[in-house]
Amino acid sequence: MATRSDLDLAHRLADLAGEAIRPLFRGDWDEEQKSDKSFVTEADRAAEAVMRQLIEAERPDDGIIGEEYGIRNEQAGRQWVLDPIDGTTSFIAGRPIFGTLIALVQDGFPVLGIIDQPIGRERWAGRTGEGTTFNGKPVTTARCRELANAVLATTTPHQFSDHEADHFMGLAKAVAERKIIYGGDCYNYGLVASGHVDLVCEAGLKLHDFAALAPVVEGAGGMMCDWRGEPLHAESDGTALAIGDPARLEDVLEAMDLRH
Amino acid sequence: MATRSDLDLAHRLADLAGEAIRPLFRGDWDEEQKSDKSFVTEADRAAEAVMRQLIEAERPDDGIIGEEYGIRNEQAGRQWVLDPIDGTTSFIAGRPIFGTLIALVQDGFPVLGIIDQPIGRERWAGRTGEGTTFNGKPVTTARCRELANAVLATTTPHQFSDHEADHFMGLAKAVAERKIIYGGDCYNYGLVASGHVDLVCEAGLKLHDFAALAPVVEGAGGMMCDWRGEPLHAESDGTALAIGDPARLEDVLEAMDLRH
Repeated sequence: MATRSDLDLAHRLADLAGEAIRPLFRGDWDEEQKSDKSFVTEADRAAEAVMRQLIEAERPDDGIIGEEYGIRNEQAGRQWVLDPIDGTTSFIAGRPIFGTLIALVQDGFPVLGIIDQPIGRERWAGRTGEGTTFNGKPVTTARCRELANAVLATTTPHQFSDHEADHFMGLAKAVAERKIIYGGDCYNYGLVASGHVDLVCEAGLKLHDFAALAPVVEGAGGMMCDWRGEPLHAESDGTALAIGDPARLEDVLEAMDLRH
Repeated sequence: MATRSDLDLAHRLADLAGEAIRPLFRGDWDEEQKSDKSFVTEADRAAEAVMRQLIEAERPDDGIIGEEYGIRNEQAGRQWVLDPIDGTTSFIAGRPIFGTLIALVQDGFPVLGIIDQPIGRERWAGRTGEGTTFNGKPVTTARCRELANAVLATTTPHQFSDHEADHFMGLAKAVAERKIIYGGDCYNYGLVASGHVDLVCEAGLKLHDFAALAPVVEGAGGMMCDWRGEPLHAESDGTALAIGDPARLEDVLEAMDLRH
């Protein structure tokens, strides 16, 4: 369970990360490529460092799984999962649609999530059993009567294997071509929570990519699952669907040729 | 030639368009699909209408080519080319990376351009013979020593025919995969002018899509051309390249297998 106090802490973590990131946006730094081919900047490191420091001070028994600085207290049932900049490529390119992701994962399942966009100062926050807020105000996902009217988002076609791309294209063909948006990373999931985007379909996500997203989308009335329709947890395979209107789940799996 | 007074008028047009668009962002309207499959909203129509009104009042002899309301004074040598919302899909999805495009085209060649993002209040402005500004301050494109280090942007893979997609993928393979950003429409070209993005590669653009972009990119030290390396003008074929560092032109055409 995530308490009110956990949510307060998560907001303070997001505040600190934003303060670390804002001065470096469109700044003068060198990015480095990591072994997984993704890039990292001074901003990723600075934001994760300040967040870890506060968690270590206030929740010394909890674990931390951070994208940049790894794992602490691996055995703890409660794990804070941090992605200081999700969408580093957008950050590098100067686009204000990356986000800081903060999640609390209990026994492998996400129970609290924050998506924070520090440049536009936009923040989605959700915790299990409580509604999602956007900048403090409740939000809900949109109803979607048929896939043909849906807005579908995905970050990049390069995230999919050939096999995965076939499934994705099934869904892409079921919606209007001009209602597919690319780019956006975590920001798209916030837009699902706010009712502007209906579907996000991705693959290759790691725990730090998706842990914060599920509580945000679900607290707004949507659902998040893997490509089999199963809830996301620490051992998920990296495929992810965000569906604003859960009534469309079967249509989505059908369009992706994933119904068996 | 675009005069200082033309540039002042263009800024006032962008102000008016922004005032029309901001209250409708993430609002409650219905989009309609046009014959070319693209979508249009009340915001597109309202923003173009206020801009046309001001041009008709202040430049009665000039022509207007607008995405939503068509052509006026077709024979005029000076044409104001308007795209009230470039990136309507991003607008519909609630992403603040669409833009209002305002261009002055003289005898078929763009001589003044504004890219305005009304939500983040970001504005790039350029006119021939004068440097490009971002929110009033001069900007310059980035030097790029090799394609392997370049940030490459394109709006959507669906814009390319199969043949065009092969050329694009040649360029995509020459840069680091994690430095390709999708989505963004006109906003990416502003980021080229500001030195955050190195390359944009697109196809299927119409005059109202590209006319404002060339003066912005070129006034910042970059170049814009079609896929043969020729300057963009009213009869261009819709292929477009923005290259922040013009020294990379030959490398880009080579990577795209367009050198003959």
